[in-house]
Amino acid sequence: METRYAIIMAAGKGTRMKSKLYKVLHSVAGKPMVEHIINRVVETNPAEIITIVGHGAEMVKEQLGNRSKYALQEEQLGTGHAVLQAEPFLKGKEGTTLVISGDTPLLTSETLNNLFEYHQGKKASATILTAHAENPTGYGRILRDHVGIVKKIVEQKDATIEEARVQEINTGTYCFDNEALFEALNKVETNNAQGEYYLTDIIEILKNEGKTVAAYQTDSFEESLGVNDRIALANANKSMRERINNMHMVNGVTFIDPANTYIDEGVKIGSDTLIEAGVHIKGETVIGEDCFIGANSQIEDSVIEDNVKILSSVVEKSLVHSHADVGPYAHLRPKAEIGTGAHVGNFVEIKNAIIGEKTKVGHLTYVGDATLGKEINVGCGVVFVNYDGKNKYRTNVGDHSFIGSAANLVAPLEIADNTSIAAGSTITKDVPEYALAIARARQENKENYAKKLPFLNESFHK
Amino acid sequence: METRYAIIMAAGKGTRMKSKLYKVLHSVAGKPMVEHIINRVVETNPAEIITIVGHGAEMVKEQLGNRSKYALQEEQLGTGHAVLQAEPFLKGKEGTTLVISGDTPLLTSETLNNLFEYHQGKKASATILTAHAENPTGYGRILRDHVGIVKKIVEQKDATIEEARVQEINTGTYCFDNEALFEALNKVETNNAQGEYYLTDIIEILKNEGKTVAAYQTDSFEESLGVNDRIALANANKSMRERINNMHMVNGVTFIDPANTYIDEGVKIGSDTLIEAGVHIKGETVIGEDCFIGANSQIEDSVIEDNVKILSSVVEKSLVHSHADVGPYAHLRPKAEIGTGAHVGNFVEIKNAIIGEKTKVGHLTYVGDATLGKEINVGCGVVFVNYDGKNKYRTNVGDHSFIGSAANLVAPLEIADNTSIAAGSTITKDVPEYALAIARARQENKENYAKKLPFLNESFHK
Amino acid sequence: METRYAIIMAAGKGTRMKSKLYKVLHSVAGKPMVEHIINRVVETNPAEIITIVGHGAEMVKEQLGNRSKYALQEEQLGTGHAVLQAEPFLKGKEGTTLVISGDTPLLTSETLNNLFEYHQGKKASATILTAHAENPTGYGRILRDHVGIVKKIVEQKDATIEEARVQEINTGTYCFDNEALFEALNKVETNNAQGEYYLTDIIEILKNEGKTVAAYQTDSFEESLGVNDRIALANANKSMRERINNMHMVNGVTFIDPANTYIDEGVKIGSDTLIEAGVHIKGETVIGEDCFIGANSQIEDSVIEDNVKILSSVVEKSLVHSHADVGPYAHLRPKAEIGTGAHVGNFVEIKNAIIGEKTKVGHLTYVGDATLGKEINVGCGVVFVNYDGKNKYRTNVGDHSFIGSAANLVAPLEIADNTSIAAGSTITKDVPEYALAIARARQENKENYAKKLPFLNESFHK
Repeated sequence: METRYAIIMAAGKGTRMKSKLYKVLHSVAGKPMVEHIINRVVETNPAEIITIVGHGAEMVKEQLGNRSKYALQEEQLGTGHAVLQAEPFLKGKEGTTLVISGDTPLLTSETLNNLFEYHQGKKASATILTAHAENPTGYGRILRDHVGIVKKIVEQKDATIEEARVQEINTGTYCFDNEALFEALNKVETNNAQGEYYLTDIIEILKNEGKTVAAYQTDSFEESLGVNDRIALANANKSMRERINNMHMVNGVTFIDPANTYIDEGVKIGSDTLIEAGVHIKGETVIGEDCFIGANSQIEDSVIEDNVKILSSVVEKSLVHSHADVGPYAHLRPKAEIGTGAHVGNFVEIKNAIIGEKTKVGHLTYVGDATLGKEINVGCGVVFVNYDGKNKYRTNVGDHSFIGSAANLVAPLEIADNTSIAAGSTITKDVPEYALAIARARQENKENYAKKLPFLNESFHK
Repeated sequence: METRYAIIMAAGKGTRMKSKLYKVLHSVAGKPMVEHIINRVVETNPAEIITIVGHGAEMVKEQLGNRSKYALQEEQLGTGHAVLQAEPFLKGKEGTTLVISGDTPLLTSETLNNLFEYHQGKKASATILTAHAENPTGYGRILRDHVGIVKKIVEQKDATIEEARVQEINTGTYCFDNEALFEALNKVETNNAQGEYYLTDIIEILKNEGKTVAAYQTDSFEESLGVNDRIALANANKSMRERINNMHMVNGVTFIDPANTYIDEGVKIGSDTLIEAGVHIKGETVIGEDCFIGANSQIEDSVIEDNVKILSSVVEKSLVHSHADVGPYAHLRPKAEIGTGAHVGNFVEIKNAIIGEKTKVGHLTYVGDATLGKEINVGCGVVFVNYDGKNKYRTNVGDHSFIGSAANLVAPLEIADNTSIAAGSTITKDVPEYALAIARARQENKENYAKKLPFLNESFHK
Repeated sequence: METRYAIIMAAGKGTRMKSKLYKVLHSVAGKPMVEHIINRVVETNPAEIITIVGHGAEMVKEQLGNRSKYALQEEQLGTGHAVLQAEPFLKGKEGTTLVISGDTPLLTSETLNNLFEYHQGKKASATILTAHAENPTGYGRILRDHVGIVKKIVEQKDATIEEARVQEINTGTYCFDNEALFEALNKVETNNAQGEYYLTDIIEILKNEGKTVAAYQTDSFEESLGVNDRIALANANKSMRERINNMHMVNGVTFIDPANTYIDEGVKIGSDTLIEAGVHIKGETVIGEDCFIGANSQIEDSVIEDNVKILSSVVEKSLVHSHADVGPYAHLRPKAEIGTGAHVGNFVEIKNAIIGEKTKVGHLTYVGDATLGKEINVGCGVVFVNYDGKNKYRTNVGDHSFIGSAANLVAPLEIADNTSIAAGSTITKDVPEYALAIARARQENKENYAKKLPFLNESFHK
């Protein structure tokens, strides 16, 4: 294999995005577009990657880090000028250079590899990645002679009526012989309406020099989608969603409605897990086998083991062990760990807390900064009071304890194994094993007193 | 410009809707269909609008108010008869009259203006708004002679095989010379199978009198969609949704999935706001720039300032100031005002209350009928007890106060600045500045008592 | 009508599903595929149904019960071999036998009846159910002679280029003369690449014997979809969803977005009910007229009477009487019964409890194992404490009572009519009529004490 290089064009302003955020940093399936690009490029094993940055250079560098070198295009003088900024890095090196745009997030490494290989097989100086467009309007058309040799690329505005009918379009991705690329780039001129240096001009330059220009047509027009506005961004999200969800379905995951299920690239899901509609799974999440992820759940950066049920809940940076069930309407905040076979019910919030094996936290409860042992029953309306206004404190509850409903546990607290907290108690002191802790006032029934109260005097009671 | 008039046909029963609600009052993107129509008609600047009402006349009048005059069609004797009811308002007036159906909510004012202008340019007596239908089955076809002059409209059932192949269809919208319209209408007869007066018959009447009948073909077949059943209503909603969401995307709003995002006509959204899937935004809502509206949020008649995060929450008739964050699973009920940088967390309900700048109401709390100052911390499980069964009372909490978890604040109450309420206290009296208010029983630990309680005797503990 | 029989082929392994669950038991619109098939088959009134089972035989038998007889195909030796397993049940019987695959859940009984009738009209020995495929790749093609008589079925891999162009495909569903079927089956051989007995071979056998082979082409290619992987399963769900939702729309139900509304087969919904997007309605649910089912609600096995509002809530095995409203973010667990005109508000959980007429349970409350009378007001943060760690107990609350906020009612309890429970009280004893029950500590304001507490010392207060 020849040495490969890649130039990622990521300096465009993206005016039609109407955004303060740099275009290539807008996300598709949870990752910035340029992140998709570099991942695909890396999969083709280039010796060097040069990213051309301009607007928002710092944020792009922060995103890509040391996976790329960077060339700054200070002025926006056209695509040819952009690529030329890579010359200091690549001049004189032998090999094949991929030129790819940072706003084409759907291109696959398979297509890029095919392009590289076609290019090398043809011993071409330049190979254009083309696609067949049902409606080619707006794209540069690939003109070929009667035996199929590429003659040139004609832009929409320069196309004759006949040329405009051509449906093979330029995707804006190319392979070049590296040396030929920079030689030709230095010959590009700005004698056009915009006064810009066009990368596509080098096709004609190479042709005039008798060099071979090839075109590799990919099957998938969709892959070549370039994102220039938010409508295209939404379309890219849709296509990526389809691709991701199809991959999971092939792996044995059931989707009720893949069109309405939003899974970031990189999420892992085991077979025989069923995902209902309206679910969002983000970040570095890993979900096991035989899980049920109910409608409208949102899971981010979490690990969900096998046989877990998540019902209409929000789960962030948490770990849910096998056979646990969560929700509906639960919220696992960062550092929640839910034990094997544990139950977290409706309107329950868990934060930075461990819920032990088979422990139940069923209703309207907040567990924050706590460690709960196993087989504990936490009643309804319990508050782990973890904050004194300045510091957060921790509460530990031992195995087999029973926390009565509407108990408030004011941290720091040690509640031993096998204890019982009476319903409605505010607990401020540690509770030793086998103790019942109680802190509540005695009930009085004031006879006939209710008659004087407003509610019973309301008209509808009479 | 000639004087323009408009007749909105809104008397049809809409039998196929199978509804108690009058057909033109069914909603598309949050507004009744006839409301869309009158808005588009008003944008064409007619001197008078006459709405033909029949079934549900009162509700239509209530909807449109004094933007229209009303003619009652007491019996349903056909479209020609319907339009004729406008004669008392328009007879003898010079100008151009638009006839439009109340069930075509997707027509744009641009198309209507084009129709008016084409009509005037052609000096026609009648101009039919037509469209190209991929599948024209069921529509009236526009027959033209060999030079393109409109000959007549043929209904589906009367069409020969050849005529049925014609793909230019009648959208049911027309411009007429006003005087010619009513002259011709009075000549329409009922010699047809249904025994009705057909508006389309006047095309032939005008032709026979040697008058010019033109046809203006709009590019957009979709716009001409007439809603006769709930399937068409769903399709109209879908098309309108696409139109609205495309408009927002062009303005710089990011949608993860526009097909699954439901925004009423009239909602305003700033650029660089990101809207996840499953979001509903209704009514007169205004959303600022750089907001994040998380999955499945529902916002109605509210103002959301810049840089706000709304996560999976329901927001009604509320005001959320900049840099505040809400949710997930929060509910802002009418007259909630959330201060700059304030936090409203999970399972929190705010109603008719002001939450001051940087104040935090994080968990499982109800704030009703209250004014909270700034930089207050409200613990978990706090209840602003605002109702005595008859009246609602208000509680005020001063700046920098600390409301302990599971506190109940029984209104009316004045809680001064810099106070502290102990966790688990039921507060019924005012609290002066710098005071700690406490109302709870002392904790007792009853040693070994838990051994006698049912939980510890359960089998799984042994 | 001739006697009809049906053979359901349900023994295939479904390797491409990558599932531990038997293929025909994967669900479409809430029911296993084979359940759809048997329901459609039963609608054609067969005298006997034989289901060929193999993998997962027991679970299929459990699903179908005594609606079918079962023949076990112990080895997977091909479709011909599968059908042959029915011979002990059907041999020698006169009549027509439908052979249908358990993985084609979209076939309608109308199509099956048409197939039966066409078969009988043609006095055929075999009739193939065919469809026109836009893209026939992968399907067996129906070859006909110049007068339209079926010659044979050619599989994809055996098709010449010309044959591959044929767009009439074999759906894999057939009618056979019952006796001819088994005679021919016994002649099928395994001289093919896979060494299997192919059902389609009997077409040639019958032809060679001079018998009539017909083909009935259904209009709907979609109906014939066979599910072999999870992508096809998702497509089947989508098609079924469209069919179900269209049926409801024709019946007068409004959908904001039918593509994003998930209703199981068998659910009943009254006219003029409006269903927002993201709603799931499952199982045996019945919903009345004029209801509003708000975005993202999930309703399962419940009865919702007329004029009910369900807002973004989860409802399971419950009964909601007319004019009640529920949600947003409410959870009705099994055996909740919500009275006429009652209100269940946000973050409220009801389980195994009756909420009386016009009673209000507005906020952050759990009602479990209780019976509430009518016109009761339950405050915010109330807990019906129903569990002592071992047993569940019941609480009864009489009409017109007022349960103050943050009250805990420790079951078993009898709270009479016209009582009042003070906010913040933990009630452990019965409350007689007209009594006010109170159980809380007296408030103390500790002057200047807050100055010493952490919160007021925090930097941002200074």
